Amino acid sequence: MTRNPGAGPTPVTVLGLGLMGQALAGAFLRAGHPTTVWNRTAAKAEHLVAQGGKRADSVRDAVAAGPLVVVCVSDYDAVHALLGPLGDVLDGRVLVNLTSGTTTQARETAAWATRQGSTYLDGAIMAAPGAIGTADAVVLYSGPRSAFDLHESTLTSLAAGTAYIGDDHGLSSLHEVAVLGLMWGIGNGFLQGAALLGAAGVDAAAFAPLARKGIGMVTDWLTDYAQQVDDGTYPALDATLDTHRAAMEHAIQESEFLGVNAELPRLIKSLTDRAVADGHGGSGYAAMIEQFRKPSGERP
Amino acid sequence: MTRNPGAGPTPVTVLGLGLMGQALAGAFLRAGHPTTVWNRTAAKAEHLVAQGGKRADSVRDAVAAGPLVVVCVSDYDAVHALLGPLGDVLDGRVLVNLTSGTTTQARETAAWATRQGSTYLDGAIMAAPGAIGTADAVVLYSGPRSAFDLHESTLTSLAAGTAYIGDDHGLSSLHEVAVLGLMWGIGNGFLQGAALLGAAGVDAAAFAPLARKGIGMVTDWLTDYAQQVDDGTYPALDATLDTHRAAMEHAIQESEFLGVNAELPRLIKSLTDRAVADGHGGSGYAAMIEQFRKPSGERP
Repeated sequence: MTRNPGAGPTPVTVLGLGLMGQALAGAFLRAGHPTTVWNRTAAKAEHLVAQGGKRADSVRDAVAAGPLVVVCVSDYDAVHALLGPLGDVLDGRVLVNLTSGTTTQARETAAWATRQGSTYLDGAIMAAPGAIGTADAVVLYSGPRSAFDLHESTLTSLAAGTAYIGDDHGLSSLHEVAVLGLMWGIGNGFLQGAALLGAAGVDAAAFAPLARKGIGMVTDWLTDYAQQVDDGTYPALDATLDTHRAAMEHAIQESEFLGVNAELPRLIKSLTDRAVADGHGGSGYAAMIEQFRKPSGERP
Repeated sequence: MTRNPGAGPTPVTVLGLGLMGQALAGAFLRAGHPTTVWNRTAAKAEHLVAQGGKRADSVRDAVAAGPLVVVCVSDYDAVHALLGPLGDVLDGRVLVNLTSGTTTQARETAAWATRQGSTYLDGAIMAAPGAIGTADAVVLYSGPRSAFDLHESTLTSLAAGTAYIGDDHGLSSLHEVAVLGLMWGIGNGFLQGAALLGAAGVDAAAFAPLARKGIGMVTDWLTDYAQQVDDGTYPALDATLDTHRAAMEHAIQESEFLGVNAELPRLIKSLTDRAVADGHGGSGYAAMIEQFRKPSGERP
């Protein structure tokens, strides 16, 4: 916990008590921070009050309660609806916004918050609510380094993996979608495989251990892939794109044959076709970065 | 190694000495199996001969050298080109085909091999050549259980993760594409994220540790996802599909804004839109299995 000279742990305000907001406030309370909470539906504050939290009667009162205000609501429109009417009470405070949004929204909100006299940090939570306050949680922050440094130990109450990633307020949102894309990739890959195997009578539970093994392999390769992406050279480590492409064609054929959705393998093969057409048939998988970097035009 | 009563380790024949075939033959040699090798380009056998391998002058001589024949070539057409003209020399032998292909190709080759009097196992290698013979390698086999049991200890020379998955010869190929789909999912998710972050000046090397953390989270959830898929009920564990869908929209917007490829997030959101339209907005990610199970029609 943060100790100010001659004072106790830093008081914290949490605005928004959805599942995640409740988890955040609970973690601050467990770490000994005087915690003021506010939610549109006051009842959601009850069990936090039972744990020693203080329920404010208004957003303004909640914000006025301390130097550090954490907001976690459904979207940026909700952030602005909540904070917009407050006037000068934000002046001099550090506002930490853990609401999911786009980099543009983060940057615009930073500009607005600065006009209110507050110091703005945008954050991205990479953890389920149940993991908040544990070693498994990661929360990334972007904005003025000095504000992060001032409150780092308080914010670490939320996640052992508390990290500052840069001045640009948009960076935390961008990291969030980057990590989410990877997580969707695993979820979708697992479900596509489960659909294929399920059509042949194999349970998803039987697939899971093998899936974990496959995930472990690629995870071990990521450091090398990352190096290749940064270097712009893509020697084949596991298999060439030509080999992957042949297997992708099999994945499409199996999906069509078994009557399961083939859109994902078709898209993957289409991207790989383009990489091969660009001369990367003998390259490793990291060569696909060149396709991911290309704009794909407006939405169809 | 397999010890026949009163005899030494089982002799093995390896046909095809690409990177993978060389790794297979090397692993058999290290495990003490008399190993006969053949390759269209004889020079590829040289370093195996230096390790004690025997180079056969013809495919027929190679096959005749022992009871267990392992073939690993570029595709099933190459398998048939190699073995088709052999006549009765396959009679009475166990043929293990580790060439990548479709379930249909595996089943058709099994029928052909049976007509030659041989016993056929189809296998799928889930390892890079460098991992063959190590604790990290997984090789799955499908076909007659008795043939697998007879040669299990010999085949375990290739991979600590040697497993029999069923009578249906197509099962190993199907597991292979299922695991590959997951691996492509990770590769593509990482590269999409690296492209986004790269456009904002963040190195892929800086993204890799965070990516590993995100992968670890989803990996921990897979057992529960699998259970939900098998049960057909999808309570939200990490976040609801509505929440994921909002973040997918952000991923599309960021990709378009930064001028990187948006096809993958668009497809993912399109699948999620359909799951939400089916009433799964409040469900967890595993509810997407219902979309993956639906046929997607003929190729566009």
